[in-house]
Amino acid sequence: MQSEFEFIKRLRSRAGAAAGVIAGIGDDAAVLAPRAGWELLVTADLLVEDVHFRREYSPPRWLGHKSLAVSLSDIAGMGGRPRYALLSLAATRATGDAFWEEFFAGYFALAARSGVTLVGGDTSAAPDRVTIDSIVLGEVEAGLSVRRGGARPGDAVYITGELGRSAAGLRLLAGGARAREGVEDAEQRALRAHLRPEPRLEFGAEVGARGLARAMLDVSDGLAQDLGHICEESGVGAVIDFEALPVAAEARLPGEDAFGLALGGGEDYELLLAAGREAEGELKEIGRACGLPVARIGEIVARNGGSALRLRRAGEVLPLEPRGYDHFAARPID
Amino acid sequence: MQSEFEFIKRLRSRAGAAAGVIAGIGDDAAVLAPRAGWELLVTADLLVEDVHFRREYSPPRWLGHKSLAVSLSDIAGMGGRPRYALLSLAATRATGDAFWEEFFAGYFALAARSGVTLVGGDTSAAPDRVTIDSIVLGEVEAGLSVRRGGARPGDAVYITGELGRSAAGLRLLAGGARAREGVEDAEQRALRAHLRPEPRLEFGAEVGARGLARAMLDVSDGLAQDLGHICEESGVGAVIDFEALPVAAEARLPGEDAFGLALGGGEDYELLLAAGREAEGELKEIGRACGLPVARIGEIVARNGGSALRLRRAGEVLPLEPRGYDHFAARPID
Repeated sequence: MQSEFEFIKRLRSRAGAAAGVIAGIGDDAAVLAPRAGWELLVTADLLVEDVHFRREYSPPRWLGHKSLAVSLSDIAGMGGRPRYALLSLAATRATGDAFWEEFFAGYFALAARSGVTLVGGDTSAAPDRVTIDSIVLGEVEAGLSVRRGGARPGDAVYITGELGRSAAGLRLLAGGARAREGVEDAEQRALRAHLRPEPRLEFGAEVGARGLARAMLDVSDGLAQDLGHICEESGVGAVIDFEALPVAAEARLPGEDAFGLALGGGEDYELLLAAGREAEGELKEIGRACGLPVARIGEIVARNGGSALRLRRAGEVLPLEPRGYDHFAARPID
Repeated sequence: MQSEFEFIKRLRSRAGAAAGVIAGIGDDAAVLAPRAGWELLVTADLLVEDVHFRREYSPPRWLGHKSLAVSLSDIAGMGGRPRYALLSLAATRATGDAFWEEFFAGYFALAARSGVTLVGGDTSAAPDRVTIDSIVLGEVEAGLSVRRGGARPGDAVYITGELGRSAAGLRLLAGGARAREGVEDAEQRALRAHLRPEPRLEFGAEVGARGLARAMLDVSDGLAQDLGHICEESGVGAVIDFEALPVAAEARLPGEDAFGLALGGGEDYELLLAAGREAEGELKEIGRACGLPVARIGEIVARNGGSALRLRRAGEVLPLEPRGYDHFAARPID
């Protein structure tokens, strides 16, 4: 890797200028001009080598994409639009110039497509493993941020896209499958969902701008766990309809529980929201405009003791523990 | 270390509420209300174990303090006031609850004293080494941020405090000295300067608010290198007066070059600025109000080929390479 100063200089030339950026990379701090009448969203996400990613699994270009994507997804989950990014990189000697060249090709391609300008961050050597901290700042009109605590009994629960594809991709990677750019089959789609997720920026921003959701977040920990977050913050319960869950075809792997992957797999980066039934038409219309299916998968109910999350299946209603995938793998439901 | 969710829950209860914070820890992103007429400052600083700190050197409480201090210092260097912080922590198993309890005692003590609210971040496991990314957002009145590129020939160069104490502390640590709370001697003062630096928040904010500096930054890489940054960004040169440098008494270690430590040591977290001579009275007055000496250590000159930085000593003017301490250690000047 080049010296820190050379590296920063090169990033700076690529980051470019943008509206609202008074000073970007290259000073003690970035200077930004907030827009009057808008609130600011800020999120940070760590990607630690051998915890969140393995270099042997991930083409560096996709890792660059994912590093930004996970934080963009948080902004979408708040109903806002991403504007600025900072990136802190602790890099090992094992990752040379070619690695970072590719990493930034992926990072900047997604940034450009998302209207995001890199304005700062930090770089450091790291003894053993790469650590990435991806920081994104976004904007939302004052009062329109969509938090986790607004769900009310009677609201319907909606999800974009399909679930379980990313978790299936992780299983396939662990089994030896590797990403191949340009190849289009179920295996590669699953790998890509895990290694190169597509944040639902347009859907999230539009739902936010129209004030359609009472609670929203992006599914990073797994549907059950993330819906559990909404229930906890809103002081409500939720019932999920087994039959309504949009399980990705790619999650139906031999020997794997597709429903478990869909419910507990995590890293889907779809948007999960609670909204009044009257919003359904508009939500589906926004979905169509974004090329995204939107499924109603359950409803918000009053919390009255016992498990906040329940699963309705073939007429029966069963408690559901709001845990991540490991739990479901240990006790498959399907 | 507790589970991620328990840990976040506890941080959340400690972070508290504050003006401008619409949503803090516990959602996809923090929601902040920017003040009309103010610009936003954003900075991120990595602290990587065995690169920026060693756990054997650093009481965890001081590490928590320093993690915030280094980013606060960047905001001071821009002439702003810190308001919000995010903290991303990749923690190893070797750091248990007691470690983080102490870490956050130090972090939150400095945050409270600085008017800073923790609004977000991320936590993760780390296989081997702790990595900390400290993100701070600050405010500055529109148009008053002090960048690196505004120095002009004829400006004087000023520095707060004294130099070389932190570098001396690092030498002492490497030689086996260890921090002892409550002990007040030269060794402990040097160790504390390195392990628990005090950012010059009030001085920086006041200089910014009054528009006194044309260029400013905090001395993190070492005086020579950081003055080199101002010269490069401003397209100017600078001459430093050897006799005027405020070398800390603690930097006069046996067998060490105190002047080299002061000029190239780094991590002093003093503020270095270029300002018109007419500002000197006010700068010193602000310094007095903050209990900080302010020394005029040289002047900005036109850049006309050769080394941007020069050193004036006993009537002679010599070129000075704007490098970090290692360079000076290899070729002691004094």
